[in-house]
Amino acid sequence: MAQEKKLVESITSRDVDFAQWYTDVVKKAELTGYTSVKGCMVFKPAGYAIWENIRNELDRRFKATGVENVYLPMFIPESLLNKEKDHVEGFAPEVAWVTHGGLNELQERMCVRPTSETLFCDLYAKDIHSYRDLPKVYNQWCSVVRWEKTTRPFLRSREFLWQEGHTAHATAEEAEERTELMLNVYADFLEDFLAIPVVRGRKTDKEKFAGAEATYTIEALMHDGKALQSGTSHNFGDGFARAFGIQFADKDNQLKYVHQTSWGMTTRLIGAIIMVHGDDSGLVLPPKVAPTQCVVIPIRQKAEGVMDKADEINAALKAAGIRAKVDDTDRSPGYKFADQEMRGFPMRIEVGPKDIERGECVLVRRDTREKYQVKTDNVAEEAAKLLDVIQKEMFERAKAFRDAHIYTAENYDEFKDAADNKPGFIRAYWCGELACEDQIKADTTCTSRCMAFGDDSVCVCCGKPAKKLVYWGKAY
Amino acid sequence: MAQEKKLVESITSRDVDFAQWYTDVVKKAELTGYTSVKGCMVFKPAGYAIWENIRNELDRRFKATGVENVYLPMFIPESLLNKEKDHVEGFAPEVAWVTHGGLNELQERMCVRPTSETLFCDLYAKDIHSYRDLPKVYNQWCSVVRWEKTTRPFLRSREFLWQEGHTAHATAEEAEERTELMLNVYADFLEDFLAIPVVRGRKTDKEKFAGAEATYTIEALMHDGKALQSGTSHNFGDGFARAFGIQFADKDNQLKYVHQTSWGMTTRLIGAIIMVHGDDSGLVLPPKVAPTQCVVIPIRQKAEGVMDKADEINAALKAAGIRAKVDDTDRSPGYKFADQEMRGFPMRIEVGPKDIERGECVLVRRDTREKYQVKTDNVAEEAAKLLDVIQKEMFERAKAFRDAHIYTAENYDEFKDAADNKPGFIRAYWCGELACEDQIKADTTCTSRCMAFGDDSVCVCCGKPAKKLVYWGKAY
Repeated sequence: MAQEKKLVESITSRDVDFAQWYTDVVKKAELTGYTSVKGCMVFKPAGYAIWENIRNELDRRFKATGVENVYLPMFIPESLLNKEKDHVEGFAPEVAWVTHGGLNELQERMCVRPTSETLFCDLYAKDIHSYRDLPKVYNQWCSVVRWEKTTRPFLRSREFLWQEGHTAHATAEEAEERTELMLNVYADFLEDFLAIPVVRGRKTDKEKFAGAEATYTIEALMHDGKALQSGTSHNFGDGFARAFGIQFADKDNQLKYVHQTSWGMTTRLIGAIIMVHGDDSGLVLPPKVAPTQCVVIPIRQKAEGVMDKADEINAALKAAGIRAKVDDTDRSPGYKFADQEMRGFPMRIEVGPKDIERGECVLVRRDTREKYQVKTDNVAEEAAKLLDVIQKEMFERAKAFRDAHIYTAENYDEFKDAADNKPGFIRAYWCGELACEDQIKADTTCTSRCMAFGDDSVCVCCGKPAKKLVYWGKAY
Repeated sequence: MAQEKKLVESITSRDVDFAQWYTDVVKKAELTGYTSVKGCMVFKPAGYAIWENIRNELDRRFKATGVENVYLPMFIPESLLNKEKDHVEGFAPEVAWVTHGGLNELQERMCVRPTSETLFCDLYAKDIHSYRDLPKVYNQWCSVVRWEKTTRPFLRSREFLWQEGHTAHATAEEAEERTELMLNVYADFLEDFLAIPVVRGRKTDKEKFAGAEATYTIEALMHDGKALQSGTSHNFGDGFARAFGIQFADKDNQLKYVHQTSWGMTTRLIGAIIMVHGDDSGLVLPPKVAPTQCVVIPIRQKAEGVMDKADEINAALKAAGIRAKVDDTDRSPGYKFADQEMRGFPMRIEVGPKDIERGECVLVRRDTREKYQVKTDNVAEEAAKLLDVIQKEMFERAKAFRDAHIYTAENYDEFKDAADNKPGFIRAYWCGELACEDQIKADTTCTSRCMAFGDDSVCVCCGKPAKKLVYWGKAY
């Protein structure tokens, strides 16, 4: 059938045209859809289910550190957005403005939240009075809007889904501790749950969040050698507290400003999963985040006993806590294999009349395509073991790839050579001056991704004493 | 201490001033907070955690019927909203308009979704081609905006949280089946999970959803005798499909329009919980939806062994799957009891030195204040049993109250007498004419809440043959 042919058509090779490959995968795995709303994306069931798994797992990890969820309004009055100078300069150029409510023009226009620092500050100023009210460790799951000119599914969209944590603490030390804690929660989550290795570090002043004292980041390397900023954690010091008047009476009866943090992760993580793990047959989902972990595909499904056996295997997998389903559509096995590969289900199980005679079935890994003949009686146990192996090896492969694509540049010629010819991170010292950072970007399109800790040397660009060891890269 | 005194101050009695009682409870149980965004509310941790439990349980029940979650843009271009005539007339007067993105005026203004029928239709028109693509049974969890003039926490707010299901089917029968299925999912959820009895029925043409062929509703009775519309399920027939051109090639190769439904529940359910179950000491949460089901309160907590025993009980409860915590703050036991009652935790466990000597502790129900002395060795088992009893009896009490507040009016004098003197539902026949419905509202402020099925008599208002048995009531 025409439809079958269309689906199994090969997608663009990722080494030929990575951007087109990405677009093909997103579309053919049915992660997103289109509406008439320019620059905004639709999360279709397969895409949204990945986000649900990310959300549920992150939320569990947040709550284990004492985070409480809240929900604040999506609108921010203009005067509120304007209260912190650096912040409004960073965001005002890219917000959407509501000017009319019902049939009337508003007295004051409001933006749709690009981020909610100002609203949390407004709430904290009303709610925090005493040291007894601290700390506040709030988070919200919501969508935010940034009026981007060019958009790409998951990576850059006028509206995206995210979580934003906003905390208030009695001391600078506590705030710094929370900032680092959340960065580590993020890093562990990516490595453990999404099988994506990260580099942790601090943003330069040029790259930090508007209004932050310090921004920490985790940076992941995509298959094309570009960096993807995957989560950030900000320490605001008492800057926002001073702008919004958030003070508390401490145990010593002194009135003090709180110290604040914020931290966020977004649906761009789905883009990271695609670009780190995907291949020329489509999506490859790590088992832990995969909405469907295993699809059972009957071979000659009209033959006696085949569908029953497929259902039996499916039931055994589900009973063992594996997210499984049977593909009982009227497509050919070949079509179903290609479909499973396109959608990135980590494993399929093939079972046909000959397998049944032998009391066996065949496990096929999505990531390596290796096949394993196993006894049907042990199928759930074997499948669970194999899912663990897949998760582990996907991380190891991604890490080996990442490590093989970190280049150390001792001088500016080496830097420029790497930027031109070696897609990946460039590890190079930097004097700390904006002029060199700008020069490097102008010469190579590389931006500083993050500053590592410790070490001393000379700046790769100007040759003056270096203050920072920086990971540089071309970024999304 | 001043703060202690403030918290335990009695709230307004619900029989003296129900509206003020509601406001007091919402505030003192810390369900909501305020920001500078007029007409919009903040869901604080205690309020949002209730919504999380509602969402998780409803989502589970939805998925068991084949629902898939998606996420669509929050913006709707004006031309898209205008496509279905009745729909736009119903919503245009109460939407918020975005006119500027970044620094530029938009070519076409967009509203922030008041509901997403038009966007789902836009998506379905692109995605549905063949009978193979049907049914679509999509749902999204999001916030929506309606520019209300007067607002009340949870009940009426410019932005609120909800779920909206939108489905497309090959036949009218399938659409009607889904409409009724979801109404029953809603009704069962309220009765089983929230312990709120409901009346199920159909809305009159005057009260139905803008653009719907039929709207089904569940109506709950609040403690003051007013009705609260608690969930609606709409059958659109093929009206939207014709407006948006959503056609599919059926098995007989004929091009046909799909039949659609939509259905939604909102955070006003939290208002229903408060107004059905609350009392003069504050909130009373049914155990199934309560974020904290049991709080362990140590008596003389500095005495040797008391805190250890409280922690031990808490651990035993948690191990049995009960959502428990210890109140180990430096407040007095009396303060803690009042606090537990205000926040509506279904049960507290008191344990002090004398209880410990006897190997016992005291379980106290929030709903009836009954006390039970139990052996600490069996505490988790006893607590679990008691939570079940509380859930069951809360429903039975609410049902007895509701049933005692349904008045049957045989003629218009009885109707007006009931409307004036008997807060509750009025069960009365109706001829089906808008004139009588309007007359009844003008005379009594009662609106038709829903039409029951079957039966024949004469209209309570005009005396002509009746077509419908209607539940009437004053509503939120």
